[in-house]
Amino acid sequence: MTPIDQLQDDIAAAVRTARETTPLAGSITNFVTIDFVANAQLAAGGSAAMVYLPDEGEALAAMSGSFYVNLGTMLPSHEEAMGHTASVLCEQGTPWVLDPVGIGLGALRTRVIESMRAMTPTIVRCNSSEAIALATAWGLVDDYATSGVKGVDSTDDVESARQAAVALARHIRGAVAVSGPIDLVTDGQLIAYSRGGSPLMEKVTGFGCALGGVIAVYAAGASPLVAALAGSAAFNCAATRAASATDAPGSFKVTFLDELYRATPESIAANPLTIEEA
Amino acid sequence: MTPIDQLQDDIAAAVRTARETTPLAGSITNFVTIDFVANAQLAAGGSAAMVYLPDEGEALAAMSGSFYVNLGTMLPSHEEAMGHTASVLCEQGTPWVLDPVGIGLGALRTRVIESMRAMTPTIVRCNSSEAIALATAWGLVDDYATSGVKGVDSTDDVESARQAAVALARHIRGAVAVSGPIDLVTDGQLIAYSRGGSPLMEKVTGFGCALGGVIAVYAAGASPLVAALAGSAAFNCAATRAASATDAPGSFKVTFLDELYRATPESIAANPLTIEEA
Amino acid sequence: MTPIDQLQDDIAAAVRTARETTPLAGSITNFVTIDFVANAQLAAGGSAAMVYLPDEGEALAAMSGSFYVNLGTMLPSHEEAMGHTASVLCEQGTPWVLDPVGIGLGALRTRVIESMRAMTPTIVRCNSSEAIALATAWGLVDDYATSGVKGVDSTDDVESARQAAVALARHIRGAVAVSGPIDLVTDGQLIAYSRGGSPLMEKVTGFGCALGGVIAVYAAGASPLVAALAGSAAFNCAATRAASATDAPGSFKVTFLDELYRATPESIAANPLTIEEA
Repeated sequence: MTPIDQLQDDIAAAVRTARETTPLAGSITNFVTIDFVANAQLAAGGSAAMVYLPDEGEALAAMSGSFYVNLGTMLPSHEEAMGHTASVLCEQGTPWVLDPVGIGLGALRTRVIESMRAMTPTIVRCNSSEAIALATAWGLVDDYATSGVKGVDSTDDVESARQAAVALARHIRGAVAVSGPIDLVTDGQLIAYSRGGSPLMEKVTGFGCALGGVIAVYAAGASPLVAALAGSAAFNCAATRAASATDAPGSFKVTFLDELYRATPESIAANPLTIEEA
Repeated sequence: MTPIDQLQDDIAAAVRTARETTPLAGSITNFVTIDFVANAQLAAGGSAAMVYLPDEGEALAAMSGSFYVNLGTMLPSHEEAMGHTASVLCEQGTPWVLDPVGIGLGALRTRVIESMRAMTPTIVRCNSSEAIALATAWGLVDDYATSGVKGVDSTDDVESARQAAVALARHIRGAVAVSGPIDLVTDGQLIAYSRGGSPLMEKVTGFGCALGGVIAVYAAGASPLVAALAGSAAFNCAATRAASATDAPGSFKVTFLDELYRATPESIAANPLTIEEA
Repeated sequence: MTPIDQLQDDIAAAVRTARETTPLAGSITNFVTIDFVANAQLAAGGSAAMVYLPDEGEALAAMSGSFYVNLGTMLPSHEEAMGHTASVLCEQGTPWVLDPVGIGLGALRTRVIESMRAMTPTIVRCNSSEAIALATAWGLVDDYATSGVKGVDSTDDVESARQAAVALARHIRGAVAVSGPIDLVTDGQLIAYSRGGSPLMEKVTGFGCALGGVIAVYAAGASPLVAALAGSAAFNCAATRAASATDAPGSFKVTFLDELYRATPESIAANPLTIEEA
């Protein structure tokens, strides 16, 4: 069995496990896309619950098989809530996904980002600009000249974030999924590229957040690399199918959720994938 | 006229009254499903408004024909807001629906739940595990061995919550709607079962919350039992129709809202219903 | 070229500019419709980002081409956040849209409304009752006998808000867009009426908010009057088309987003428009 055959088997197993075990993946996530995150998690077979208070984050973390922390739309209470929650997750060894959306914006988010350098997440889900900004903020790479975060959007392509993604993955001893026209996923040793999807994903808010939430669902029952790859493959597979059914963002989002729900472990594993050494 | 014919007439009248009077049903509700709650309330003929500050809750309660209080995604300011709002509702005798989502999670929610024992809601909308947990928290039943809240989901079936639901309905002198594959609705004397719907309702976040919001709309112009039954029947009727049009959650939610809007008072009243004594 | 031909050319240019430049239009907006606002902004060609903290509002305002401030679902932290953000917007001369939703409800919102009299927004987007209430709150008109805000809905028709809209537009030296069955847009000199749309817009939450967000996108590259008119025309154009495809609110919202994305500058400019002197 080749390494890529093995990965595809693992991806299919991760998708199957999520469907069979309905893992609870709790979240602290932003208000813009919270409904999309929950619905994508349910479509992938998981169970979703969102909280914002420190002790609720602790309690939810304690009962979750995995967790998703997304840094969009921060409120004053988020700092303590995210800190308490991440502490419990790290103590328990519960896998969790960090989505550093909006990195660079505001003092509170910057403090949270800084504090999470030590409370290492299992997986980072981000776009290219965020990967570069996070690796820079954590002192893992020299400042890139090309890094540019435009609000919540990326101005860098995924290949420009390759070095940052590898450095991040090695630091957290987990996996990093960088979303773009082609997705880059790495555990610091291997670099995998997941293809497919549609430019319409940029015309609907929250595809990145929803992907982070679904990666968390898969992470409850798979290794960080496989969970990140399974999430990327599932999204590309479902989005490719949705884009063949419609050409506009409203119906694209609806059809994407349908296709995410319908996608079989085998079809997700068969989504175009290439690998190389980091 | 048999009791069930009478109930069906009352359900049709409740649905018709909501369509004709567009009652304002204010809400303090969670951030995950807030859009779905509002859109379901509008589809049922009501008017929706959501607030989070204590004095805004008081003011909105004073101008509302009914109200919906959902305990998901609490923020520090929710405790005071919910307390002030419930006080005004009780003083004015305005019907309101309590949705104890997340019961057991965190100190703030526990305090709010405790305080609402005295400020009795008119209707409780919940799943089986939440009904058991709420009746236990309020000391209305002995601790059930089977109660299990998994995040925001239930691990108990509706029949196991029958005793708890009856005890709650008698305590609040109103009605309790317990959602499940078959819905149980009781006023403490009568137990009604509403059938239909679809397993896809579990694959979309917020069907329970949206039902709570729609029951509030109906409660502005109907008795607690009839409002709870009308809401359950409307949801089962619309979901049955949506499930005949699609097999996946994205399009199911969209079609459900369409069918909730299209459903006539007569078709909602004709949704399968059985009754027995409590 | 007649004045109306000129306006239609300007509308087409505003729509084209947004599509070509993808302006970042940051927002502080309510939790009910935040997803709809972001998706409408993306469908119109803009880039969306939402924040709630004071320093994040300042930072996002500094990097945005325009901004949207919507007063729904206030939290304690909103007052400072909106004040700081509006200050930066005014200092920089960045165009921004105020949506005074819920005006009259609660002390915090009333203080924010009052403070924004001096930090004049570039555009006000509202319904008739809100236009009358805002002009009254700012002392620009005598108290109307007919003003009535019902939660977040209007009980006044657009023509009854004509004097208030003109007074507001003159005070802010910008434009006011009053939504109704026919939309009224004025810069204080000219009054334009945009026709089309569908009664289904009242059966879905957030069409007004989403319009405010899209007007902000256009305002990054057009005059206040043209941005307000382009937004109203785009919404009426897309809603007219959506209403020809479906008769119910769930699919109407989805189809509307599709049609907003598909609408060409020319088709938006050709939406029925009449003008007269104020």
